[in-house]
Amino acid sequence: MPSAAGRGQGKERRLDNEEQPAADDYAKERYGVSSMIQSQEKPDRVLIRIKDLTEEKADEVVWVRGRIHTSRAKGKQCFLVLRQQQFNIQALVAVGQHASKQMVKFAANINKESIVDVEGVVRKAHQKIGGCTQQDVELHVQRIYVISLAEPRLPLQLDDAVRPEVEGEEDGRATVNQDTRLDNRVIDLRTSTSQAVFSLQSGICQLFRETLIGKGFVEIQTPKIISAASEGGANVFTVSYFKSSAYLAQSPQLYKQMCICADFEKVFCVGPVFRAEDSNTHRHLTEFVGLDIEMAFNYHYHEVVDEIADTLVQIFKGLQERFQTEIQTVNKQFPCEPFKFLEPTLRLEYREAVAMLREAGIEMGDEEDLSTPNEKLLGRLVKEKYDTDFYILDKYPLAVRPFYTMPDPVNPKNSNSYDMFMRGEEILSGAQRIHDPQLLTERAKHHGIDLEKIKAYIDSFRFGAPPHAGGGIGLERVTMLFLGLHNVRQTSMFPRDPKRLTP
Amino acid sequence: MPSAAGRGQGKERRLDNEEQPAADDYAKERYGVSSMIQSQEKPDRVLIRIKDLTEEKADEVVWVRGRIHTSRAKGKQCFLVLRQQQFNIQALVAVGQHASKQMVKFAANINKESIVDVEGVVRKAHQKIGGCTQQDVELHVQRIYVISLAEPRLPLQLDDAVRPEVEGEEDGRATVNQDTRLDNRVIDLRTSTSQAVFSLQSGICQLFRETLIGKGFVEIQTPKIISAASEGGANVFTVSYFKSSAYLAQSPQLYKQMCICADFEKVFCVGPVFRAEDSNTHRHLTEFVGLDIEMAFNYHYHEVVDEIADTLVQIFKGLQERFQTEIQTVNKQFPCEPFKFLEPTLRLEYREAVAMLREAGIEMGDEEDLSTPNEKLLGRLVKEKYDTDFYILDKYPLAVRPFYTMPDPVNPKNSNSYDMFMRGEEILSGAQRIHDPQLLTERAKHHGIDLEKIKAYIDSFRFGAPPHAGGGIGLERVTMLFLGLHNVRQTSMFPRDPKRLTP
Repeated sequence: MPSAAGRGQGKERRLDNEEQPAADDYAKERYGVSSMIQSQEKPDRVLIRIKDLTEEKADEVVWVRGRIHTSRAKGKQCFLVLRQQQFNIQALVAVGQHASKQMVKFAANINKESIVDVEGVVRKAHQKIGGCTQQDVELHVQRIYVISLAEPRLPLQLDDAVRPEVEGEEDGRATVNQDTRLDNRVIDLRTSTSQAVFSLQSGICQLFRETLIGKGFVEIQTPKIISAASEGGANVFTVSYFKSSAYLAQSPQLYKQMCICADFEKVFCVGPVFRAEDSNTHRHLTEFVGLDIEMAFNYHYHEVVDEIADTLVQIFKGLQERFQTEIQTVNKQFPCEPFKFLEPTLRLEYREAVAMLREAGIEMGDEEDLSTPNEKLLGRLVKEKYDTDFYILDKYPLAVRPFYTMPDPVNPKNSNSYDMFMRGEEILSGAQRIHDPQLLTERAKHHGIDLEKIKAYIDSFRFGAPPHAGGGIGLERVTMLFLGLHNVRQTSMFPRDPKRLTP
Repeated sequence: MPSAAGRGQGKERRLDNEEQPAADDYAKERYGVSSMIQSQEKPDRVLIRIKDLTEEKADEVVWVRGRIHTSRAKGKQCFLVLRQQQFNIQALVAVGQHASKQMVKFAANINKESIVDVEGVVRKAHQKIGGCTQQDVELHVQRIYVISLAEPRLPLQLDDAVRPEVEGEEDGRATVNQDTRLDNRVIDLRTSTSQAVFSLQSGICQLFRETLIGKGFVEIQTPKIISAASEGGANVFTVSYFKSSAYLAQSPQLYKQMCICADFEKVFCVGPVFRAEDSNTHRHLTEFVGLDIEMAFNYHYHEVVDEIADTLVQIFKGLQERFQTEIQTVNKQFPCEPFKFLEPTLRLEYREAVAMLREAGIEMGDEEDLSTPNEKLLGRLVKEKYDTDFYILDKYPLAVRPFYTMPDPVNPKNSNSYDMFMRGEEILSGAQRIHDPQLLTERAKHHGIDLEKIKAYIDSFRFGAPPHAGGGIGLERVTMLFLGLHNVRQTSMFPRDPKRLTP
């Protein structure tokens, strides 16, 4: 048999639900289930990407590997949709020179989501093929071999999983709820929406680092297992560490600051952050990815604020330039307004925000923190007034910030601290840190923190420490809010919350 | 006083060990301890980088911020060396028009490692200034203000910390032992050697991602808190998780594989990996940074091996191109041969390695794993024969690899698995993974693994799984071995081992 390599490296097997082939099946070598690919050989066959199957390839014979997205038998024909990531093409198996009726039946019986190798001729379509990304061509199948067979019953249907909820409600058609998605994440992640969300998230990380490396930052790696909880021990996970115990870092902050004291000047890190908070909300996870920045400055922490804000602006610009297809793909299922931002970034002081909220009828004290509803309302007010989805709130009341936050030199009730917001939700919290061990000790005492537990932290500043500031960005929140999604679990591949530890 | 901004934003204070200024000190406004920088103001002063102070700037008046690296008073003069990261310059405070004898004394009394703002005139040096990176110029100081005062006694001296050990031994001069370094990491990281090591490490991460993104890979984020230990539960850290318990991931492998089953095709991740092994060696850490790759392939896992090896080659090339200064800086303290590699990368089969070792007098069985000494010996034999510090060992005995490793289709005692080595030490372990749930179940049973515990893992492959392979690289090991260092604690900023959890 000349096409041994062409057949996917092994003796074909039958599908379980299939009859024995008729002895007179003239196409019997042209289909089947390949034996498991165990790297038996290195055929020189070239597999063409589905996205590259266009009219320019018309009448060429090509090999393609894809999943059976749908199949529909119709008399002597079987129409398959073959999918590869977010691209798909119609493939036709029709009784004729290359395919017998047994082969058509075989093709029609392959379970959805199975992976197949197909040899076919690219043909111009007589009319646009709706529902496929490759609308101008179809594939006339000459050989088809199953590479990996999916089980017959899928826990969720991909078409249901990308249906806009509103549409589902109107038509009575199925959508997929979040727990089903997350329980079967391997399948849910195959949808065009998931593929787009996580490609874009990869882009955020890339743009974050690209921008910072361009600004002269150095990437650092900070430990996640720590011996003491720097902020007093609330909300940390405990780890058994040989015969002793340890904690999971709630943030890389101490280590970023140590790097500043060690003269790295501008550092960033990307890594997991752990919060043992029993918060079951749309925006809290027990483990998330922190994009962290710390930077020594010369005279004013706004030098740092400007760098961080510009980094975020570069991310937004980069996403809108490089990920337009992904944004549109997500928008099909989750419609939303394009993300708006200003250059330079709008910076408001906390007292201005309080004034805006009071004007809108909210009662709150000068030194009161923003509640989640007030945060969102403020986002809407800012959007109305300034037409931006991204802004900085500066000069938070000292009382609502951690002990290591530098007090404002003018008004001792304020602090040199800031949050940044996207679509009315906080995505970054940051501050000028106290770099003077004496003041740091005073502030820790004031907060009732056990000085013994933070000795190593305070000692880091005893041998000359430059003034510095920084902040931490939540990756999943940035992804969610940039795309206008509504739950951080949509932008965490394998989310962790108080009730979910799997898959 | 016109130069208020120039004076570092506040009323000057005195050093503790200093007398009250004489009333007749004509320079008394020109020095002092600035009040803590609390972002009081935004002066438009430009601080010049020390590395930019060259002959071209001769006779210009500049402001510089740096640390007091050394100071030496000599009659009416005080010579300071000001340091900024790995660059330094000599600064002269001499009694004259701008400096009084009190000011000279003040300068001479500033503790080493304190951070100062200095205004001075750049002057051409009469002769090369030994021991400084800026050899052609010196700074004639007109003003000097302490920005952050270091405590008088340093736990280690930077000059001792960069001294080559051999030199120290010969001269009876001090070097610094590893525990002292690690206990005082904030200071140890300031040395030119540490600055170079960790700049280069940042470069490794950057080159790793740059190369893979260029090859069409997507970056993923995988959870570190997991509900079950996929390889049976040995060597995992346990975490208290609300009212239940969980584990720290020993590798992102399951999640990388799930992403492959979810059609991401080529993925990578960079993140912490946790191993609860009580190994106290030069190359084991309980927490290290994994550079992980997983990739679907068409017909043969060597497609993946080639991509991984090329990624490492691109890293080596990039380091030699972009980090030559850092490499030389490290070599000054830790001399070593330049790292050698071939293109394409040398790939040997395990049986060839066994034959080479036997020829060198080692007795070992065909299915025996490589011991650490044999690994190193093999590295020397390979270097002699092929003149490369980097090679791949392919086709390990099945018996020494994890249950999910794909058996070799030709010789069932072998497997489709590989390690990669730098200077005779393993830096990557990888394999084709079994993508067939039935074979995976069989192999798990054979290894005596509780099938219930790995159900989620096996289920990931039930809905169509492409053949795939991958591997995990240890960042600290790559850094160590590329630079020819001898302990992985030198290339982990804040190393974690069974005995060390701090700082």
